[in-house]
This record gives sequence, C-alpha cells and structure tokens, in this order.
Amino acid sequence: MPPDATSDAPAPFRERLRIVIFEADTRAGKAFDVALLISIGLSILAVMLESVPEINTEHAALLRRAEWGFTALFSLEYALRLYSVPQPLRYARSFFGVVDLLSILPSFISLFLPGAQSMLVIRSLRLLRVFRVFKLARFLGEANILLTAMRASQHKIGVFLGTLSIMIVILGTLMFLVEDKATGFTSIPQSMYWAIVTMTTVGYGDIVPQTVTGQLLASVVMMTGYAIIAIPTGIVTAEIVAAARGPITTRTCAHCVSEGHAADALYCKDCGESLTGE
Amino acid sequence: MPPDATSDAPAPFRERLRIVIFEADTRAGKAFDVALLISIGLSILAVMLESVPEINTEHAALLRRAEWGFTALFSLEYALRLYSVPQPLRYARSFFGVVDLLSILPSFISLFLPGAQSMLVIRSLRLLRVFRVFKLARFLGEANILLTAMRASQHKIGVFLGTLSIMIVILGTLMFLVEDKATGFTSIPQSMYWAIVTMTTVGYGDIVPQTVTGQLLASVVMMTGYAIIAIPTGIVTAEIVAAARGPITTRTCAHCVSEGHAADALYCKDCGESLTGE
Amino acid sequence: MPPDATSDAPAPFRERLRIVIFEADTRAGKAFDVALLISIGLSILAVMLESVPEINTEHAALLRRAEWGFTALFSLEYALRLYSVPQPLRYARSFFGVVDLLSILPSFISLFLPGAQSMLVIRSLRLLRVFRVFKLARFLGEANILLTAMRASQHKIGVFLGTLSIMIVILGTLMFLVEDKATGFTSIPQSMYWAIVTMTTVGYGDIVPQTVTGQLLASVVMMTGYAIIAIPTGIVTAEIVAAARGPITTRTCAHCVSEGHAADALYCKDCGESLTGE
Amino acid sequence: MPPDATSDAPAPFRERLRIVIFEADTRAGKAFDVALLISIGLSILAVMLESVPEINTEHAALLRRAEWGFTALFSLEYALRLYSVPQPLRYARSFFGVVDLLSILPSFISLFLPGAQSMLVIRSLRLLRVFRVFKLARFLGEANILLTAMRASQHKIGVFLGTLSIMIVILGTLMFLVEDKATGFTSIPQSMYWAIVTMTTVGYGDIVPQTVTGQLLASVVMMTGYAIIAIPTGIVTAEIVAAARGPITTRTCAHCVSEGHAADALYCKDCGESLTGE
Repeated sequence: MPPDATSDAPAPFRERLRIVIFEADTRAGKAFDVALLISIGLSILAVMLESVPEINTEHAALLRRAEWGFTALFSLEYALRLYSVPQPLRYARSFFGVVDLLSILPSFISLFLPGAQSMLVIRSLRLLRVFRVFKLARFLGEANILLTAMRASQHKIGVFLGTLSIMIVILGTLMFLVEDKATGFTSIPQSMYWAIVTMTTVGYGDIVPQTVTGQLLASVVMMTGYAIIAIPTGIVTAEIVAAARGPITTRTCAHCVSEGHAADALYCKDCGESLTGE
Repeated sequence: MPPDATSDAPAPFRERLRIVIFEADTRAGKAFDVALLISIGLSILAVMLESVPEINTEHAALLRRAEWGFTALFSLEYALRLYSVPQPLRYARSFFGVVDLLSILPSFISLFLPGAQSMLVIRSLRLLRVFRVFKLARFLGEANILLTAMRASQHKIGVFLGTLSIMIVILGTLMFLVEDKATGFTSIPQSMYWAIVTMTTVGYGDIVPQTVTGQLLASVVMMTGYAIIAIPTGIVTAEIVAAARGPITTRTCAHCVSEGHAADALYCKDCGESLTGE
Repeated sequence: MPPDATSDAPAPFRERLRIVIFEADTRAGKAFDVALLISIGLSILAVMLESVPEINTEHAALLRRAEWGFTALFSLEYALRLYSVPQPLRYARSFFGVVDLLSILPSFISLFLPGAQSMLVIRSLRLLRVFRVFKLARFLGEANILLTAMRASQHKIGVFLGTLSIMIVILGTLMFLVEDKATGFTSIPQSMYWAIVTMTTVGYGDIVPQTVTGQLLASVVMMTGYAIIAIPTGIVTAEIVAAARGPITTRTCAHCVSEGHAADALYCKDCGESLTGE
Repeated sequence: MPPDATSDAPAPFRERLRIVIFEADTRAGKAFDVALLISIGLSILAVMLESVPEINTEHAALLRRAEWGFTALFSLEYALRLYSVPQPLRYARSFFGVVDLLSILPSFISLFLPGAQSMLVIRSLRLLRVFRVFKLARFLGEANILLTAMRASQHKIGVFLGTLSIMIVILGTLMFLVEDKATGFTSIPQSMYWAIVTMTTVGYGDIVPQTVTGQLLASVVMMTGYAIIAIPTGIVTAEIVAAARGPITTRTCAHCVSEGHAADALYCKDCGESLTGE
C-alpha cells in the first residue's frame, strides 16, 4: 500500500475488509485467499468440462449454472475489492485488477457472442495469487531473480530471435524452392511454418521433405536448430548465475582497488578498508 | 546405524547377518549385494517378457514359476532384513524398506487381481542399491551435489512450472477457439494436451493445426517452448555450478560471526576484521 | 567511416545524403531507416503472398506491380548509396553492400528464369539494419558478446560436430543393416537422414524402426542425442559466462608484462610485483 | 612416440617413411594425410552410393571396383604403417591401429557374408585424423577440455542415467497398464520404447496415448523429460566452466591462506608471496 494512501484513513470496517481480501498474513486473510484459489480452480475446471462435447451434452444445465455462480461470486469479490481498497483506480489499473475484471467479462459477453465463455480460462491468471498465500517473500524473491535474468538478457534474446526469424524466412523459402509442392510445401508461409516446426525440434511430421536435396537442406535446418538452442540457454544461464551471485564486480576498494566485493560488503575483503567511505 | 541402536547389543549371528545383508564392505556383503542385483534384474526381465504376448503364450508356465520363485526369494530376504536389523520398524519405514515390501506385494495381489504382477517392475527401484556396491561414497557424493542443486532450485522451478501450466491452459484454450474441431482440437483439455506436446518440443503430430491462424499461434507456442527450456536449464546449471564451487558460506567471521564470505576473502566484509586470524 | 576517407572531402550534398542514408542519428536519417525497414517488410510480405496459390491467382497483377515497385525503389536506393558513399567499392564489397545488391537482382533474373523472384526474401537480411535504428550501441554490444562467445567456442563446436557427423554415419549404417528395408531405411543416406532426425530430437516419425533390434538401437541414438545436447550448450554457456564476466586478460603486469590476471588480483601471479602500482 | 622407442634406431628410410605417414608437420607428411583423408571420404561415399538401390543397379560394377581399389590402397597403407613404426604391436593395439584394421576387414568378410561391406563406413572413424592435419595442437586442446569435462562428470551422468532408466521402466509399465493395447502399447518393452521416445522429446508419433488417463500420464512424462534435460546440461556446463577456468581453487597461499589462484600462478595474487615455496 503506497505511503500517501495511509493519509486518508479508511473506515475501520473497510480497512478490516481490505486486510482480509488483499493480505494473506492474518488467519482470515489466508482463509479467504485459499477459498478464492479453490473456487478459481473449480470455475476453470467447469469451463474445461463444458468444452468436452460428451460431458456438456449431459450436464449442460449444471455447468452453465456453475459458471454463472462463479461469475456472480467473482463479480461480488471484484466489487468488494474496489470498495475496500483506498485507491480503487490504482487497483483497477494494476495487473491483478485488470485480470480480475477480465475473468468475469467473458460470461456477460457470451450472452451476445456464444462460445466466448471459453475465455473464462483467463481466470487461471488469478492463480498466480497462489504464490501470495504461502511463503510469499521467498517465492517473490525467486521470481525476481528470474525476472532480473530475463530483463538482463532481453537484448541478447532480441538479437537471437531477430536472427532466428530471418533464418526461418530464408530457409523456409529455400525449402519451398527445392521441395515438391505435393509434399506440403505449398507456399513460402507454409514452408516457414515447417522451418519453425523443425528448428524448434518439435517435428510434427505433417510436412516432411521427400526429395534428396530437400532432406539435405532439412538436415542442415535440424542441426542448426539443435545447435543454436545452446545460445538462449547460455544467455539465460549466464544471467541467472550473475543474478544469483548478485552484482559482484561493480564495487572497487578505494584503498587497494580490488574488485569482486559482494553486494552487501561493508569492508574490502582484501585489505579490510571500509568500502562505504566511513 | 543410529547410535542408540548399538545400546541393545544384537546377537553375534544377527549382527553378522545384518552386516552381510545391509553392508557392502565385506566380501560376503558385496557378494550378497551383487547376487541380489542380478536376481532383481532377472525378475524384472521375467515380468517384461511376460507382458509380450507372443513370448507369454509360449513360456507362460515357466515365466509364472520364475516370477513366484523370485517373489519367494525376495520375501525371504525381506524377512531376514526385518530379523537382522536392530530396529525393524525404522527399516520398514525407510525408503528402501517400503520399496522392498512393494516389490513383493504385487505377486500376491495378482492372485485376486490378474495383471497386477506387472507392477512388479517397481522392483527396479531396488536397483538403486547398485550405487551401494561399488565406490559407494563417491556416487553418493555426486548424487548429493545433484540433490543439493535440485533442492536449492525447487522454488525457482516451482515458479517456472506454475507459470508454464497457466500458459498451457491459456494457449490450449486459444487453440481450441481458433482451430477447427475436425483437426483434433475437440475440447480444451485435448488442446491443452496438444499444447504440452508442442511446448515440450515432443511433437507427436497426432494433433496438428490446419488453419492459418492456428499455425501462427502454434508457431508462437513452439518458439516459446523452444526458448523457455533455457530457464530450467539455467536454474539447475547455476545451482550445480554453485554446489560444485563448494560451500561459499562456510567461512564465518570470528569477530561479528557474519557468513557468506567469498572463498578468497582476507577480511570480513561486514566488520573488516581479518578472516585469516593474523 | 575510415579516417583516410575523410581526406577527399565529399561535396556537401553528397555528404548530407550519406548521413541521411547511412547514419541513423539525425532525425532525417532515422526517418529514412524506418521507412526503409517498413518497405523491406512490405516487399517480403508481397513475395510471400505471391507464393500462396489462392492469393496469387486473384491478385497476381497487383503483386507483380508491387514487387517491381519495390525493386525499382531499392535499385534507386542502391544507386544513391553508391553515389553518396566516399568509397563505393568498399561499400559494394561490404556485407550489407552485397546484401543490398542481392536483394534486387532476383527480380531481373526472374525475367529469364520464372520463379526466381522467390529469392527476393533475401531482402530479409536487410532487416538486420533494424538494430541500427534504435539503441544501436547496446544491441551491437550484446551481439558482440554473442559473436565473441561463438568465435571462442568454434573449435570446440568443430570437434563436437565432427564427432557427431561420424556418429551419424555409423549409427545410420547400423540401422540400415538391422532394420527392414520396407520400413523406410532403404539406403545408408536415408538411414543417416533418419539418424539426424532422431539425434536432433526432431522426430518426424516418417521413418521409424519396427524390429526389436532396430528399436533398441534407436533408443541408444535417442538417449545419445538427448544427452549430448548438453555439450554444445555447455560450451556456449561457458563462453558466454566468460564473455559476460568481462575481459579477464586486460590487466597486464607492468613489470613482466604477463596477462591473464584475475579481476581481484593485487599482485602479478607470475613475478609477484604489485599490480596496483603501490 | 615414446622415449624408449628412439633407443632402437630405425633405418633412415623407415624413419623417413614413418615421418611421412605418421607426422603431419613436414610438407610430404601433410600431403600424405590430405590425400588419405580425401580417399577415405571417397571410399565412404562409394559405400553409401552402393547402398542406394537405383544407383547400385546402374553402376554396380564400377562401385565394386572402387571399393576393392580403396581396400587395396588402405591395406597397403596399413602394411606400411606396421613396417615403418618402431613398435608395430603398440600401434596395432592403439585406437587408430584398430580402426585402420577394421576399415579394411569388411571387404574381405563380404566375400563370405554379402552385405558386410556396408560396415566399411567404419572408415569414417579414420576421418578423426582430420584434426591432426591443421592446427593439431589447438584442436587437441579443445578436445581435451571436452574430454576432461566428460570424465569429470561421468559419475554424475551415471547417477542421472541410472535414475532415468528406472523412471523409464516404471513409467513405461504404467502406460502399459492404463493404455489400450490397440493403440500400440502392446507390451512393457514396447511401452518403454515409447517412454524413451517421449522423454527424449523425440516424439515420433507412431505410438500415442488415446485414453484420457494415458494422455495425463504422457503429459507427466513429457514435462519430466522436458525439465530433466536441464540436469545433464547443468552437469556438463558446470564441468566445462571448471575445465576452461582450470583447477583454480586447489591452491592456497602459505602466507595469507588466500585461495583461487590460477593454475599457472607463481605468486599469491593477494599478498605477492611465492606460491612455489622458493
């Protein structure tokens, strides 16, 4: 909760409500979150089952009722969140605020646009709250390390993906030129789809080269895809190693100019001088 | 063997038996373990062969007899283990104790529930004892490094798998919405199964997108699966590097008892005291 | 731009033109590059659409016109580049110079050799200029780290690929010997193609072993391919970690001019002289 | 060449012959090796082409003649190697000695056992000599780093593969129990084959689960295979990082007990004391 939010003191009830709904530290708050997670899981399950023809034909009515029940429940919860939080707009614009809204809209949309209720699975995003319930801090810490690594490596990944896309365009076109149209390489986009399927080593096998030259080229594509997986892995690994080790090489001792001090070091590990200049 | 176990001195015979059965250091103990491993391997082979129709029809009787022979043998061994070990309950509740029991039960169950004997392959878990026979210490050491790395990275892996599952739910649903039902995306669970097959780059090809939008979305799924493999790899690698680099936190400052000093630190990074005691 | 190029001062107009076309720092230069990237993207899109039968039959004329329009545009641009740059030959022989030429030739070739215009996708290579437009320096920096890692690991990768190829030859031949010709292993090259498809874990499934020995051998091939992916990954990761950790060899001892001192070294590891100049 | 070999001085001609055949430093020696590599490549190509039905039917005679020509050539070379090397037995028992013999035997075997000549591809192993021709030292250096990493991680890999095999046995059996026999899971070994195909993310798609429980279990198998690839990768990467960095943490300064000295360090990088005790 932002400092300036504490200034306008909320009514004790609203505050207690807020603590129950938003915090997971109190017993009530934890119980609420657990119940919420369970009902989210059930609602997603209902949506999935509804999409299975044989099940839907039997329990259509039941599933519809369940869906609307959960939607009503989550709508009420959303309203309470808006009511209890000191700054409704800030919550509404937050990631979870948007997700909470998106996870009730599809039901209403489905009134005019049948089938839209499938999008209710967006509710699964709400399950991310699970990390809030138990050992919040640690999980967020781990997640942060991952996010730091991701952010730190995004440019390298960008360079990698850019080059990869261009390779896919060119290799796909080459296959389109050398391969027989009858074997599925009917157009350049189709061949590019094949190149992606092959380079990522997914290999469905719905489109496969038949000609000798095509198989030779395909072998090159496979070896490439098999080898370059090393690049993103290497990038992310290096970043995670760095992120886990913490920013270690940025600090230099003013006295013995030694480097490699831990992020939380107060004194030089080589000469014992103070690093904080005190 | 726990210290308190030595208090009630076991009869010399029981003790000798225990050493033969449980230890692998003596010649007799090693011979016993090797014989045990071989018979375990043979019994598993028998179970497998029994599952092959053409073989079973011919040698059904022989295989059944072999199976019961091994079961009798292992039951006897289990009894001897219970008899020889000072604290039978502790053994029975240990990992190997449970495995030893589970590896004889299916035969008896199969008397009432035909086909259950296939579960005898659980005996393969007993093969883990192989690491005990030769160079026990080193292998356990290596295994410990792996376990340490696993345990250290379990939270990051948890965050990763959680996010992955949510992606699978949402991407699977999107495919279910855009793809033609005729092409195998008959329900959300089915589409999620496809999403898993694709994201893990397994790519059976039993369900493949046909529409252009479907193939576009599939390409995104593939690229994602191809790229994010880097994350668990990076996590585990970082941990193994750390675990292999050795305990960086063993050094404690005698003055301020702070930990986490680098391997080459000369002075405490928190209070500036000498770590080398000079 | 090379120093000696500044000697023969170009006409102000040519110079201004050069800055617009070749640099991305000025507003005009940035606008030019962005417009160029967009038109490149559109031209590639046109080539792709032209390769799709159902689309081409409808808008054949339109697409041809678009293609020739872009070709004319890029030809003009190429001419301007040659005109504005102080040393035309040096540009023409540079990577981008060759790419710029290759990306207009196919259109003219297609006059005599129908279908050649598909090779216009080579234009996609020009998209690499995208890294020039925004945050040039950083991206090049990242790219350099990747290139450094690639170059540093090329010998290891060479050893790896050499060994891999030999394994593919031998394993492919073994499969050819043990497997039934009817199941697709019609010749050694065909079996080698299968070995590549399997080792790279692509696994199309168009050729699969049927005999027991064949499946056993295939399992070995798969496990090998699954395990050795670790090798290129390890190589590249190690290099990226090293490249990211920064130049460990920049520090030179003033006394014995030896290099390769650790980042936190205080004294020369070869002659014991102080590296900090104290 | 071992020191004691120099004791019995070989005849000048034999010695010159040996240098030409075994060394690649002299012009003649290099020329010989290059010619050898080319003829090996051609002979392998001949064997491959012979295995292609349509080609063999046409040029059967030619290919046979080529094969026997190469076999004669390599037999002569083998004889010369035995003659020129001071210790024939030592060479004959060495890796390359065995390979050289194996690469001529199949032709003679094929006289009694048709089809055996396919095994001539074993000659491809001789191509490993390619590393000897150019930049020998560096390549061997790189190869050594890889070998060191492999050897250092073999125990971890052993633990990993052992656990993996047991998982494959158990998961394969579970699939055999839950899946319909009609869908290809006809026996435990067959299901284990499927488990390997799936865990290694190869995914041929020749055997795929159809039942819901089967697909659930398969999803677990895939996620497992997708996740645990991180383990061997992490192991090898850690070892390569270590091998590339060299044994860095084993040396401790007797004066300031600092660690982390480079393998070739003569003086402590922290206090400048001699590490060699001089």
